[in-house]
Amino acid sequence: MHESADEHAIERILGKNEEMADHNREHFKSLGACAFNLMSAPGAGKTSLLETTFKIAGGKFSSCVIEGDMVGDLDADRIKKVGVPVHQISTGRSCHLDAQMVARLLHAEPLEKADAIFIENVGNLVCPAEFPLGEHRRIVLLSVTEGDDKPIKYPVIFRNCDLVIFTKCDLLEHVDFNISEAIRHIEAINPAVKTMQISAKTGYGVEQWAAWLVSEISEFKQHLKSDKHVHHTAH
Amino acid sequence: MHESADEHAIERILGKNEEMADHNREHFKSLGACAFNLMSAPGAGKTSLLETTFKIAGGKFSSCVIEGDMVGDLDADRIKKVGVPVHQISTGRSCHLDAQMVARLLHAEPLEKADAIFIENVGNLVCPAEFPLGEHRRIVLLSVTEGDDKPIKYPVIFRNCDLVIFTKCDLLEHVDFNISEAIRHIEAINPAVKTMQISAKTGYGVEQWAAWLVSEISEFKQHLKSDKHVHHTAH
Repeated sequence: MHESADEHAIERILGKNEEMADHNREHFKSLGACAFNLMSAPGAGKTSLLETTFKIAGGKFSSCVIEGDMVGDLDADRIKKVGVPVHQISTGRSCHLDAQMVARLLHAEPLEKADAIFIENVGNLVCPAEFPLGEHRRIVLLSVTEGDDKPIKYPVIFRNCDLVIFTKCDLLEHVDFNISEAIRHIEAINPAVKTMQISAKTGYGVEQWAAWLVSEISEFKQHLKSDKHVHHTAH
Repeated sequence: MHESADEHAIERILGKNEEMADHNREHFKSLGACAFNLMSAPGAGKTSLLETTFKIAGGKFSSCVIEGDMVGDLDADRIKKVGVPVHQISTGRSCHLDAQMVARLLHAEPLEKADAIFIENVGNLVCPAEFPLGEHRRIVLLSVTEGDDKPIKYPVIFRNCDLVIFTKCDLLEHVDFNISEAIRHIEAINPAVKTMQISAKTGYGVEQWAAWLVSEISEFKQHLKSDKHVHHTAH
């Protein structure tokens, strides 16, 4: 977020984003898909986590990916290679995805039918936090190489998420990262959050993560059904 | 940078920033200090590098630090502990330092006399690239845990810098990071750039980094002298 722009302009931009995010949320619902917004610093392992997830747990639910990058499609190519449909958004100068960019994509390229839509945000621990995209769940990845003080230094993104995944846990023995301290910092600002430890390299923790996804997707579909039921009986 | 804001507004903000950066640059020159802008993703090791530098090479030049953080002063405390004067800028919602914030600090808190001023930017590989602060040299840190594709994905920051430091090189044997590939990607967009490998943990490469700093500071002071000379003879 740029301090140089005035507060009114910022509130107006965020308000417009919120409206468009609601629109996207309905769009995802109409596809029957639970949408996950994956956020992290650059290089925390969002794409690696997705690759491993599709390899290990691909049979448990169907997926589709929206890749957000400033330039290029390196990550999209990696996702394609594991056989999952992927759509690219190039943000250009923008340091995060916003709901408008996602809406434009949804209307230009109809998404494949899937249980889960994973939106991989631009690598940035600041700006994505303030721009919901219409996702149903928000996930933050924190690599154990980044230091356990990050939740203190970047509180907004850790406050507004459903799950924090500690990634690259295979490196834990080589770095000074105290998982309990990190969890303490996160829970201080977000008591309801769930945390998880994963290594996409060794596969450690991936089963637990896949089980969480299956459970969230199933809960989402239950809601969808009861929503429809309410809607139906109301007529 | 937020795409949502219109291009004109962005150009106006960047133009104003540039003016203020020129003002800061003159301010740093009047102090006789060479200013270094340190940029990286969150947790790449900017503060650790400074701590190690002051411990190992503190006698070679005098230093002063400006710390940029969204909230808190964790990093400033670490710098204080190694006996170097430090000034804190809290950016609040802003995802980077801008020249206006630095100018406000310079006028509110006179800096200590020093050969080098290190400005530690907010951890972000996108936005700091577009906001010069009045520094004389721009340094980007890339942790080897982040992946060697980062220069392709975040080209702006790697294009506009004088030095790229690969940090956490003690972890090289545990991660898939190809230094030659990374250098190739960086040189493709910034042929004049210098690169260096460092581990703040083991001290590896710190002597070379300190030697670079000494040489840059000395070159800066030479320029300063000849500037003054020109100015003097012009009268």
